Amino acid sequence: MWPDQRLCDLFRVEHPIIQAPMMGSCTPELAGAVSNAGGLGSLGCGEKPATTIRAEAAAIRARTNRSFNLNFFIIQQEKTDPRVLEAARKRLQPWYDDLGLGDPPSELPPPGRGFDEERLEVVLSVRPRVVSFHFGHPEASHVEAMKAAGIVLVSSATSVAEARVLEAAGMDAVIAQGWEAGGHRGSHKPTAPGDGVGTMALVPQIVDAVSVPVIAAGGIGDGRGIAAAMALGASGVQMGTAFLSCPEAATEPARRERLRQATDRDTMVTDAFSGRSARAMRSRYAEEMERAREALPPFPQMYALSGPIRNAAGDSEASFFLYGQAAALSKEMAAGDLVARLVKEAREVMGYLSRR
Amino acid sequence: MWPDQRLCDLFRVEHPIIQAPMMGSCTPELAGAVSNAGGLGSLGCGEKPATTIRAEAAAIRARTNRSFNLNFFIIQQEKTDPRVLEAARKRLQPWYDDLGLGDPPSELPPPGRGFDEERLEVVLSVRPRVVSFHFGHPEASHVEAMKAAGIVLVSSATSVAEARVLEAAGMDAVIAQGWEAGGHRGSHKPTAPGDGVGTMALVPQIVDAVSVPVIAAGGIGDGRGIAAAMALGASGVQMGTAFLSCPEAATEPARRERLRQATDRDTMVTDAFSGRSARAMRSRYAEEMERAREALPPFPQMYALSGPIRNAAGDSEASFFLYGQAAALSKEMAAGDLVARLVKEAREVMGYLSRR
Repeated sequence: MWPDQRLCDLFRVEHPIIQAPMMGSCTPELAGAVSNAGGLGSLGCGEKPATTIRAEAAAIRARTNRSFNLNFFIIQQEKTDPRVLEAARKRLQPWYDDLGLGDPPSELPPPGRGFDEERLEVVLSVRPRVVSFHFGHPEASHVEAMKAAGIVLVSSATSVAEARVLEAAGMDAVIAQGWEAGGHRGSHKPTAPGDGVGTMALVPQIVDAVSVPVIAAGGIGDGRGIAAAMALGASGVQMGTAFLSCPEAATEPARRERLRQATDRDTMVTDAFSGRSARAMRSRYAEEMERAREALPPFPQMYALSGPIRNAAGDSEASFFLYGQAAALSKEMAAGDLVARLVKEAREVMGYLSRR
Repeated sequence: MWPDQRLCDLFRVEHPIIQAPMMGSCTPELAGAVSNAGGLGSLGCGEKPATTIRAEAAAIRARTNRSFNLNFFIIQQEKTDPRVLEAARKRLQPWYDDLGLGDPPSELPPPGRGFDEERLEVVLSVRPRVVSFHFGHPEASHVEAMKAAGIVLVSSATSVAEARVLEAAGMDAVIAQGWEAGGHRGSHKPTAPGDGVGTMALVPQIVDAVSVPVIAAGGIGDGRGIAAAMALGASGVQMGTAFLSCPEAATEPARRERLRQATDRDTMVTDAFSGRSARAMRSRYAEEMERAREALPPFPQMYALSGPIRNAAGDSEASFFLYGQAAALSKEMAAGDLVARLVKEAREVMGYLSRR
């Protein structure tokens, strides 16, 4: 039992610990192991084709009969301003030149499609217990259809105002994503890289602002962070970085090596890779781009310009290694063992606090 | 009693709650009230003349016979590069023009003197129970002299590396100052405004790195934050913004009004006022200066350039109102009542967490 059982009841899980749906790093193996251990396993669906999502959901179901979560992006159908594209190409030309890549692409792929009718159909046929969103919430008719199918809906807020919007849009729980979190910031509109509220300040203010359960995310690396989140009034936690070192994760070997040596100051927030602010390992590319900021193509179109650099340059030069500020707390262990350890640690801390 | 009594024993206080030494906002009345309520009252000494410090310390002693804290800046004797000064003057000229201020000053005041022999002498004669530092630590002979006099020494770290440096320099406790904190970031070297570790991530990593007691700071606005800090392994907390709304604080009426309406996203980190990164209310001036960053004169010399703008422009244009990301959690009440309330709230949360 936990001090606040609301999230466990909502998700039908034993422990209010969500494995974050990290695109590119999470796998059906990871999600299945977390769910089997009593947490909520998640799968990032991003721009994956419907067939892939169905196959991966089936792979989770082959591993567990417990609740799991599918995550989708909410993407504005925003085209890149031609002047912004030209300026960004000019700005990146020295990187392309140094790496012998020729010219940056003069045309960008179409904007991401986000959560559309086809995605809704996949969700309604797969029927996961939980569906979560990043960068906002789906349109009202989609929300209604999913809720009618008994699916629990969750999305991320990086501010009190966004949390209020999500509750009003019908989300059953809100993730309070603090500044410390690795990966893309879930802000509903693009924000400047320095513009983030820390988890310690964000969680209680969101708890005060909404009546749905709040899930704390950002900087939570072990049981101490879980207990702290609950002290702040959160009903549960979402942890991403902590699961990156699990054998079941699809984390690149180079990133695993970085995580082994991680420090608190390893990362920075930048939109210079994808067009939206994300916390990733410091690199010369990101630092150069942030030192003198200019408008860039929107997410995810900016990837088309940064991708060649990322692929051609060395790891410390321009890698987009996403992880958070508590990476140094990570343990390398099987995901199921990690969940059990986190639960034990959190309970020990909660017992310690009641000592007078 | 508290789960961890180490800080209470060290400071000889009942509650491990430090009122932050906010230069310009703290008063002997505030420090005395906090100390009388069982916390640790503090006085920011900054560049105040020795006679002022002695008089204010006497004013605290007239109010309480309990422990209190005097805080000093550690300032590098760094002169402004003439090219940096010229570029900064050019950059600020439009602001000076718009406000009818003539030209920005062409000469800056001498660098701040920080903690020198005269300051040491003041400290040794006043003999407060605690002396804390910001921006680093004093030189070894000064540390030795103060410790020999039975004074407890504390300083702020914004990273694990800085915490290790402080412990090695003989500090008896380390403040882990997170990204959320209002006011100047205590980083030992100037850092870029986006470069901060959130309290949730910073505290446990510093707790793991040093053996002295750790004091959590940043984003702690009420008893939930205190309990959360202790869950993360902190032995106590330092709270600043929470005390700004107390009648005993010297907070400007305009800032009090802002604090009444504060939200989580009110503030930003900028070095455009003082030359060092500080969290303050968003303003057009700070946002313009951050959008395209350039080198500025070092702390505190930059004040000489920004001061006229600050004084001439309207509040939302260029005010340097320092407060943190949890300002919305503030209550307007007497400081002694606030300490009692914080203690009660923290204990309720700790009791709640032990509920299974």
